[in-house]
Amino acid sequence: MSTVIINGTVVTASGTSRADVRIEGGKISAIGLDLASGTDTIIDAAGKHLLPGGIDVHTHLSMPSMGTVTCDDFYTGHLAAAMGGTTSHIDFCLQPKGSSLKAALDTWHAKAEGKALIDYGFHLIITDLTEEVLDEIATLPSLGVTSIKLFMAYKGSLQIDDSTLFRCLEKARDAGIMTLVHAENGDAIELLVQHALERGQVAPIYHALTRPPQLEAEATGRAIALAEVLDAPLYVVHLTCESALGRVREAQARGARIWGETCTHYLFFTKLDLERGDFEGAKFVCSPPLREVQDQAALWVGLRDNSLSVVSTDHCPFTFDPQKMVGRGDFSLIPNGVPGIEDRMMAVHQAGVNGGHFDLERFVALTATNPARLFGLEGVKGSIAVGHDADIVLWDLGREHTISQATSHGATDYTLYEGMKVTGTPVMTLIRGELVTNHGQLEAAPGSGTYLHRARV
Amino acid sequence: MSTVIINGTVVTASGTSRADVRIEGGKISAIGLDLASGTDTIIDAAGKHLLPGGIDVHTHLSMPSMGTVTCDDFYTGHLAAAMGGTTSHIDFCLQPKGSSLKAALDTWHAKAEGKALIDYGFHLIITDLTEEVLDEIATLPSLGVTSIKLFMAYKGSLQIDDSTLFRCLEKARDAGIMTLVHAENGDAIELLVQHALERGQVAPIYHALTRPPQLEAEATGRAIALAEVLDAPLYVVHLTCESALGRVREAQARGARIWGETCTHYLFFTKLDLERGDFEGAKFVCSPPLREVQDQAALWVGLRDNSLSVVSTDHCPFTFDPQKMVGRGDFSLIPNGVPGIEDRMMAVHQAGVNGGHFDLERFVALTATNPARLFGLEGVKGSIAVGHDADIVLWDLGREHTISQATSHGATDYTLYEGMKVTGTPVMTLIRGELVTNHGQLEAAPGSGTYLHRARV
Amino acid sequence: MSTVIINGTVVTASGTSRADVRIEGGKISAIGLDLASGTDTIIDAAGKHLLPGGIDVHTHLSMPSMGTVTCDDFYTGHLAAAMGGTTSHIDFCLQPKGSSLKAALDTWHAKAEGKALIDYGFHLIITDLTEEVLDEIATLPSLGVTSIKLFMAYKGSLQIDDSTLFRCLEKARDAGIMTLVHAENGDAIELLVQHALERGQVAPIYHALTRPPQLEAEATGRAIALAEVLDAPLYVVHLTCESALGRVREAQARGARIWGETCTHYLFFTKLDLERGDFEGAKFVCSPPLREVQDQAALWVGLRDNSLSVVSTDHCPFTFDPQKMVGRGDFSLIPNGVPGIEDRMMAVHQAGVNGGHFDLERFVALTATNPARLFGLEGVKGSIAVGHDADIVLWDLGREHTISQATSHGATDYTLYEGMKVTGTPVMTLIRGELVTNHGQLEAAPGSGTYLHRARV
Amino acid sequence: MSTVIINGTVVTASGTSRADVRIEGGKISAIGLDLASGTDTIIDAAGKHLLPGGIDVHTHLSMPSMGTVTCDDFYTGHLAAAMGGTTSHIDFCLQPKGSSLKAALDTWHAKAEGKALIDYGFHLIITDLTEEVLDEIATLPSLGVTSIKLFMAYKGSLQIDDSTLFRCLEKARDAGIMTLVHAENGDAIELLVQHALERGQVAPIYHALTRPPQLEAEATGRAIALAEVLDAPLYVVHLTCESALGRVREAQARGARIWGETCTHYLFFTKLDLERGDFEGAKFVCSPPLREVQDQAALWVGLRDNSLSVVSTDHCPFTFDPQKMVGRGDFSLIPNGVPGIEDRMMAVHQAGVNGGHFDLERFVALTATNPARLFGLEGVKGSIAVGHDADIVLWDLGREHTISQATSHGATDYTLYEGMKVTGTPVMTLIRGELVTNHGQLEAAPGSGTYLHRARV
Repeated sequence: MSTVIINGTVVTASGTSRADVRIEGGKISAIGLDLASGTDTIIDAAGKHLLPGGIDVHTHLSMPSMGTVTCDDFYTGHLAAAMGGTTSHIDFCLQPKGSSLKAALDTWHAKAEGKALIDYGFHLIITDLTEEVLDEIATLPSLGVTSIKLFMAYKGSLQIDDSTLFRCLEKARDAGIMTLVHAENGDAIELLVQHALERGQVAPIYHALTRPPQLEAEATGRAIALAEVLDAPLYVVHLTCESALGRVREAQARGARIWGETCTHYLFFTKLDLERGDFEGAKFVCSPPLREVQDQAALWVGLRDNSLSVVSTDHCPFTFDPQKMVGRGDFSLIPNGVPGIEDRMMAVHQAGVNGGHFDLERFVALTATNPARLFGLEGVKGSIAVGHDADIVLWDLGREHTISQATSHGATDYTLYEGMKVTGTPVMTLIRGELVTNHGQLEAAPGSGTYLHRARV
Repeated sequence: MSTVIINGTVVTASGTSRADVRIEGGKISAIGLDLASGTDTIIDAAGKHLLPGGIDVHTHLSMPSMGTVTCDDFYTGHLAAAMGGTTSHIDFCLQPKGSSLKAALDTWHAKAEGKALIDYGFHLIITDLTEEVLDEIATLPSLGVTSIKLFMAYKGSLQIDDSTLFRCLEKARDAGIMTLVHAENGDAIELLVQHALERGQVAPIYHALTRPPQLEAEATGRAIALAEVLDAPLYVVHLTCESALGRVREAQARGARIWGETCTHYLFFTKLDLERGDFEGAKFVCSPPLREVQDQAALWVGLRDNSLSVVSTDHCPFTFDPQKMVGRGDFSLIPNGVPGIEDRMMAVHQAGVNGGHFDLERFVALTATNPARLFGLEGVKGSIAVGHDADIVLWDLGREHTISQATSHGATDYTLYEGMKVTGTPVMTLIRGELVTNHGQLEAAPGSGTYLHRARV
Repeated sequence: MSTVIINGTVVTASGTSRADVRIEGGKISAIGLDLASGTDTIIDAAGKHLLPGGIDVHTHLSMPSMGTVTCDDFYTGHLAAAMGGTTSHIDFCLQPKGSSLKAALDTWHAKAEGKALIDYGFHLIITDLTEEVLDEIATLPSLGVTSIKLFMAYKGSLQIDDSTLFRCLEKARDAGIMTLVHAENGDAIELLVQHALERGQVAPIYHALTRPPQLEAEATGRAIALAEVLDAPLYVVHLTCESALGRVREAQARGARIWGETCTHYLFFTKLDLERGDFEGAKFVCSPPLREVQDQAALWVGLRDNSLSVVSTDHCPFTFDPQKMVGRGDFSLIPNGVPGIEDRMMAVHQAGVNGGHFDLERFVALTATNPARLFGLEGVKGSIAVGHDADIVLWDLGREHTISQATSHGATDYTLYEGMKVTGTPVMTLIRGELVTNHGQLEAAPGSGTYLHRARV
Repeated sequence: MSTVIINGTVVTASGTSRADVRIEGGKISAIGLDLASGTDTIIDAAGKHLLPGGIDVHTHLSMPSMGTVTCDDFYTGHLAAAMGGTTSHIDFCLQPKGSSLKAALDTWHAKAEGKALIDYGFHLIITDLTEEVLDEIATLPSLGVTSIKLFMAYKGSLQIDDSTLFRCLEKARDAGIMTLVHAENGDAIELLVQHALERGQVAPIYHALTRPPQLEAEATGRAIALAEVLDAPLYVVHLTCESALGRVREAQARGARIWGETCTHYLFFTKLDLERGDFEGAKFVCSPPLREVQDQAALWVGLRDNSLSVVSTDHCPFTFDPQKMVGRGDFSLIPNGVPGIEDRMMAVHQAGVNGGHFDLERFVALTATNPARLFGLEGVKGSIAVGHDADIVLWDLGREHTISQATSHGATDYTLYEGMKVTGTPVMTLIRGELVTNHGQLEAAPGSGTYLHRARV
């Protein structure tokens, strides 16, 4: 038996067509006119656009961090994602010091087990590069993992040195693995934080002031230089500022295999939000920090002209109370991270498409097609095309909605986008042809999400 | 009755799928698995890729120039195009001094009448901007023309001044028309040419030496500045060099609506080719001239990273003998232009895709999808998608071919690419579902090509 | 008989020394310790710094413009200059259409005749490039004129086309003459002005809004490109904005012979000043117009890092009433120009040296040494060095002063710098060893200033 | 009693004058016409130019390195320097691990004791930043040391991490000390060297190939970023390539306090020289390595336009046999460093001034005035000005000379410049008014050179 979505308008990264979509065996078997026959399950998408389900390649579910754990697990996080039109994500699996990569992956698989509502893959964060671990990198593709991540910041915990970065870039290149970097100079940041605390500068705003954009641009340029020397592919996560974007642009103009990602919140908020009263600024504490209005403008241009390829969320949720509150007297203790997995598609559509920065096709490219192509999901996810998984969002371009914590589905007790009015929301979500959400109702069961065994890049 | 292409692999700018394509009423009605039924005409594309028919947005057929006329008309040019996998083009309609734009269009329609094998549209070259002509610009979209072109070079004939450019950009912006510029500083070039001739420097190489890249970068930057002041869309044709590309990149990074095009020959030849013996260098005389190897490298990067959106041909063919021969004693008399309409798809596929600069999807974007989207053909041409015209090329990725004048179809007596071996050629071409070429045989009749009434941009 | 200035501190562009200065025959004959003997005239400079007299290479005295004439002549302008510490200037001699260059120079010599208090030279503005005039350029050095100027703006009056610019650059290069350009795109400006007036936008602020910085950057880049193609020296006058400065920097980094100048007022005022009430904004109308705060910041950096070589005044004075008042109902009728010849040294010293942008040696370089070296006065003017003309300003670093029209000496009825407090002023001025001003008293007679026959560059 | 140099032409960074120079008490007491009286010692400089004695701010005399010691001590190195027109230098004093800075300085003072022929100061290389050493930095100015140096390369020996760099920049800034960096990414270089050796790539050329310019540009950008965050002054030593120069230019254009130095050999040789036969390539092994012709061109432009402020030597001499020979089978064992202290002034004058890159005044700025001003010797050294030390070189602009090991004075057994013909050499050298060399004869006694207690910067 098959399903046909009729009367909709199909959007891909390369164009828009009025067409029905036939789904068989969880995959798209045809796109065309008048595809429905009497025996099909029919979904009427009249007045709706069919977008490829969103892919969020930067999330942290149930992740230990700074003495606590992010508050969304693979159920609540997935529920929020699906409600927001996101049908796949790639989560960061963290290697504990001393652990093998395989053991870390096992831990992460266990986190998802029995809970997943959407499809999920893993990047592997390498924190401890022994010779064994270096050899283990080449085995990751056989486990479906074709991306690793390294932190140039968080001195004393996650931060690696340039030797480690260089060796990983080289190993990853040879194994068909993409390397991701968190690009900030952790050495300098650590000292600036110390200085600030010594001076009694403890408010949330000092989180931003101790992580100036020059230190992001520096680390971005450094990672690029190492990758270029090796001709290794490199993906710079959560790029926030004009100067770092400049480094990416220059590298791309030299022909280097460098891609950039920004995250939703950098497009909407600035460091001024860290000064909100009643410690509300803590809600906006993330790393790299929020920047200036001119940086936002630069990021929108980058999303349009392809110097940035992806908008992800860096969904790393902590509750305001009690989790963020821990840093009330010391900004350096505020858990770093913000929620966003439910908001991304609506917020970026609103400001990006309705706001005139780019068209719906580019929106699809940034939120689904590019993430799939960059991370080994080409031909499977990220587009409405024959043979692809039927991960489809019915999007109502005319539906008005006000984003609010009251109507959100994640485990945090706040949303950054509280009160934002949007026109254009998802109303139905299918994954592999199965209905997952329908006008705000969850239709799938925990455990229905499946692991994404990704191809080499 | 309908046609179904079975067993092929469909390529669009956003992905590749194994799928059949059903064609009804000249349009694509479905893309899917197992679409053929007993009553359909079947084309078996086993082992072939289905690409959207090439769109060449820069051609000069039957165009008067320098006292002669380009040697391909709308029959021979179209034949060559179709054999090379190009199914639509936009030709440059030239306003004679003193003429209305409408009259110029009538002339160009007459040129195509009864000859056309592929679909064709017109850009309008404005050479004489009276008040009447200025007003007439806004009427062009009603005639299906949504792009105008201005020459910043060719002093004394086609060259306009900055006032004209500025006024046209503004009018075009308001009318939903794209402005194209030939960006070279004609004032300086004219003087450099005079100097060269005074010194007896008459060989073809002086064509390049009197048109240095700084003068292209200058004019490119100038046109961009005027467009940016007006927030008008601007398309820079036949960009050839790293410095001009830099101007485009900078503008795009500022968020300006600027696009760049290069042409096939700039990717394959350099000014050294102008020094070929026996006056053969004259075959390579075009404006802007061929540049350096490092410029080629920059152009390939630009095509990959989207700072260049289109590869066209600037097909402007003259015979070596007698047409190019006119300039034997004086390079300034050599007609400016080279053929290429048949070679573009094969040559760019060979060096671009086989050569590792980009993938097949990007090839489709550069040769078909982007041209369609930029020039008012979105939803009609440029992609294999439901509802689009069934302009499809069956491409054989494995077929080997050596480009040669002997096996070419245009009216020139040479090809620049003589002897170039390629792997990957078109083997069949359909336009609006009708077979136009099939393994080197023409299947369509003169006059079957239709005029493209293009939408506003 | 000779004069010795004792007890002062001598400042040159390369250093500072406690030293006496001996003057014989109008020239510096020695710099050293304890130079005074009994028979000398002694000037005691205890507590003072001895700076080379200021050289202002951009002035317009008694110049016809927009139906009126600048209000300072060679007497009032010189008086103001001398009081402000400027001892030489180069004025712009304007070729009327149809006139020979020699005739224009004769006119300008007559303007200075019998009035001059300081030394003066002439740049020649070419407005009408006939073949005769082109040939005449090479004769200019024999008349002591080694710089010509061309306007890329002021369509219909002063503006030349690119052919003229190119031919002049080439002739000038061959003759050892520096070419100066006013770099703004006059074609576009003329149309923007027309549009503004058509919309009833007549207030002074529209002067700035119709001359956007992109049009200055464009023309700057264009002049540079033409000069680079010819390897001709080029000096960009009154550069105002970050984007134009960028063009200069890039050219310098390519090794081109390009120099930039800014003017005092661009360092202190912004386009907001054009919105001052009671039509006071008209006082700030000059071309190019005042820009933004970020442009000011860029200019200060440029002065420090030598991408800008000179601060001049573009002293082009008109009275507020009646001259500026003419444009009360139409900004395009406001005479373009501001006074500044008396204020430059004090204002730039205050903000530049006291404000920490650069040291006193750099101040000397920008206001005297560089102008002399660039314009054929090397070895004669611009430094306190043996053999040079004894053009010396005694500068009191500690003297406080408030700039005001009430205490100024030019013929305008206002100063832009009204109320500006400075610490550091000239207190005495010598030209060729003769006292010209002394604590606010004029000591020289009209006609004492002499013509500067300048050397080739 | 005093000395007067008559009939010479005095050159400073700001101009040139025909003048006598009177010297009293080792200092210049007057510059003027006809200064000689009967009781003076007269030096007749007819036909000669008087330049300020060269200052070489980058030397390594008697320095332990890679298991050996540089072969020039404070006698042979000084002899070579003086013969070449260099009268002061600043040597690098190396802190051994575990040592205090004071102890390191004591060691270096001992090296100079009784040997010095020219004046000398010390930079302090920090290799081991304990808390005690961090505190000790502020005491350096009291010892006459106002510059420290850090190595970003030489992993495992000299290389420091970013924390150390950041802390030193901050301490130095507060103490009025300039920070110098050797900017190469040592982590990546170490791995590239390992890889090369593993592959059996042992020839000298692999020294260059394992230290690609991207890694210098990266480290340069990193040091600049850290300095900018702190608003600390930074001096990048031995900059070699266009891309690193780009980083310096960008920082300067942002207004940062960043200066760049290149060294003589980067202006004359390329990495091709590392491929000279018979292991002669080893003579050219230094770090950073020699680059490409286009990098040389960029450096010359930088020296002209002031993005580079200084040409030094990085004089770090080893004999070809036996010292360089150690690396015969393994390039990584070749001692890094080349001689140059005697050649700098002649070579740079020849290619820079005679070659048309800049004038004699700029030559003086680059070799004497800028080094003095940047390193706390302003008013004492670096210019021919009243009150300055009488460190003067009589330069014969017309004298022809062929540089050769046979006529050189240092302890190495080769010169890089063997066979280079120059026009323009020093013929006499005075330090503090005393004759040190005279037409190739040494006139001073060991120990006559004195320590330079330098001022804060």
